[in-house]
Amino acid sequence: MSLITVGTVAFDAIETPFGSSGKIVGGAASYIGLSASQFVKEQHIISVIGDDFPAEFIQELESRGIRTDGLERRAGEKSFYWEGKYHMDMNSRDTLTTELNVLADFQPKVPESARRADYVMLGNLDPNVQASVLDQMAERPKLVVLDTMNFWMDIALEPLKEVLKRIDVLTINDEEARQLSGEHSLVKAANKILEMGPSTLVIKKGEHGALLFNSDEVFFAPALPLEEVLDPTGAGDTFAGGFIGYLAHTNDTSFTNMKRAVVLGSALASFTCEKFGTERMLTLTESELDERIQRFVDLVDFDIVLKA
Amino acid sequence: MSLITVGTVAFDAIETPFGSSGKIVGGAASYIGLSASQFVKEQHIISVIGDDFPAEFIQELESRGIRTDGLERRAGEKSFYWEGKYHMDMNSRDTLTTELNVLADFQPKVPESARRADYVMLGNLDPNVQASVLDQMAERPKLVVLDTMNFWMDIALEPLKEVLKRIDVLTINDEEARQLSGEHSLVKAANKILEMGPSTLVIKKGEHGALLFNSDEVFFAPALPLEEVLDPTGAGDTFAGGFIGYLAHTNDTSFTNMKRAVVLGSALASFTCEKFGTERMLTLTESELDERIQRFVDLVDFDIVLKA
Repeated sequence: MSLITVGTVAFDAIETPFGSSGKIVGGAASYIGLSASQFVKEQHIISVIGDDFPAEFIQELESRGIRTDGLERRAGEKSFYWEGKYHMDMNSRDTLTTELNVLADFQPKVPESARRADYVMLGNLDPNVQASVLDQMAERPKLVVLDTMNFWMDIALEPLKEVLKRIDVLTINDEEARQLSGEHSLVKAANKILEMGPSTLVIKKGEHGALLFNSDEVFFAPALPLEEVLDPTGAGDTFAGGFIGYLAHTNDTSFTNMKRAVVLGSALASFTCEKFGTERMLTLTESELDERIQRFVDLVDFDIVLKA
Repeated sequence: MSLITVGTVAFDAIETPFGSSGKIVGGAASYIGLSASQFVKEQHIISVIGDDFPAEFIQELESRGIRTDGLERRAGEKSFYWEGKYHMDMNSRDTLTTELNVLADFQPKVPESARRADYVMLGNLDPNVQASVLDQMAERPKLVVLDTMNFWMDIALEPLKEVLKRIDVLTINDEEARQLSGEHSLVKAANKILEMGPSTLVIKKGEHGALLFNSDEVFFAPALPLEEVLDPTGAGDTFAGGFIGYLAHTNDTSFTNMKRAVVLGSALASFTCEKFGTERMLTLTESELDERIQRFVDLVDFDIVLKA
């Protein structure tokens, strides 16, 4: 089934307590596209870059079935650039530099060939920009997944709440779920957020796994305990790409299938953490992914015979 | 199989953002004993109380098959008292008052009838006191589980390291695992700690679940997402009691059975969080426990057919 993603294709520079990446390729749509390409053979990404962006990376995406008709290339402008530094815990980070560049007035244009897509991934962006993508669809997609962050809750809460009414699945982290709902308990937070529009909520807890909620079911997928986390940048986007990519590939949006999609997204995200940027996703093989999925299966496998 | 527990039987006073308990019964051995009594019909607790401690609670323990021959009652002295206040996140807490009282010179005496116990639970205490219990055993128990905390790592690291050489299973939380090992990654921390003596390690992550490690296997049990956490005091001890109680009841210390024990301990701990102190454990029914275990099973249940 057809999949389109809107999100950034950009440059990052990442510092961690263990090393520095230098200026590398990043951006939500890069991670989402690469991750989803594990499952879907054709998809679109909709984004904007300047003429400083490496053509090789775009070719790499295209070689994986990621169409770039919707990728605007602006001559004489620079790509979005983000510089950040992780703290010792590798969970929290400070933004050192944000240069919006081409992103400042980004107006995504959904190509004609993508307007009937069944699966739409709205990567973290201004909620008004996310909404404008839905406005361009020829018909209501089968499934819309939206990722956002605390920044938009701080400065664009009303537009965010508006777009939430038009989506199916929201993916946010635990602190963002608390901020959006005003509830500390994640169960209460989930209940409140599910009343805001989405029928399904994914709460990403980083090294503590992910929770999947709908109005009457809950599922928990652990994160794989890793020996080394070199760089968690893009892990959430990799998760989202694996999640929607698997749903699009199977064309099954049942809760049972979403549980599988959460596990697969988590498995893919665990690879992204192993190297800086998109490096690990570019070398990932199918057998490596299968081996890792098996580790997730084993990690939570137990049997209990109830006394009753 | 026979089980003995050494640990505190004491008073607590707990403040949370949602309420205050007043002075109530607590103590590691109280929680451990009550939790283990879900599985074992006879066990010993070894502890010390003053003459201010309510006889009704001791009778309650005894009515559940918890023998108190090893519970020293000191006339004219006061029981151990701890007062603490939880922060808004309900994970971290400050100690407001610690009155050691009878605990100051506690020398546990293992009753003759308990010296051949197969299962020994060493609740959080001075590591020298924990070691003295092992010294009194007539033979090496089948399984020794030890719980400790950062306080002993700060002030009694060498005695702690000595007693770790004599045990089988260590239960600590994630921050303590990092402190004890000097490693941030929990996988690396586990590897280092398993070299210190225990063959199995449980890392308790509170609302984020628990990890079980041996030298070549790892298992993760989630915590049940709860709507309300009224008071997490005693949750770790309830976990430990359920864990060792189930192992003693089944007399099976395989990794497969320990995985079940971790899930059962987690299920029991989730009840303790629902009320102040031991209140919820005292009213818990077998069908409530079964229903909750089923929720744990459902929470992590998924099926994936690998492509390969």
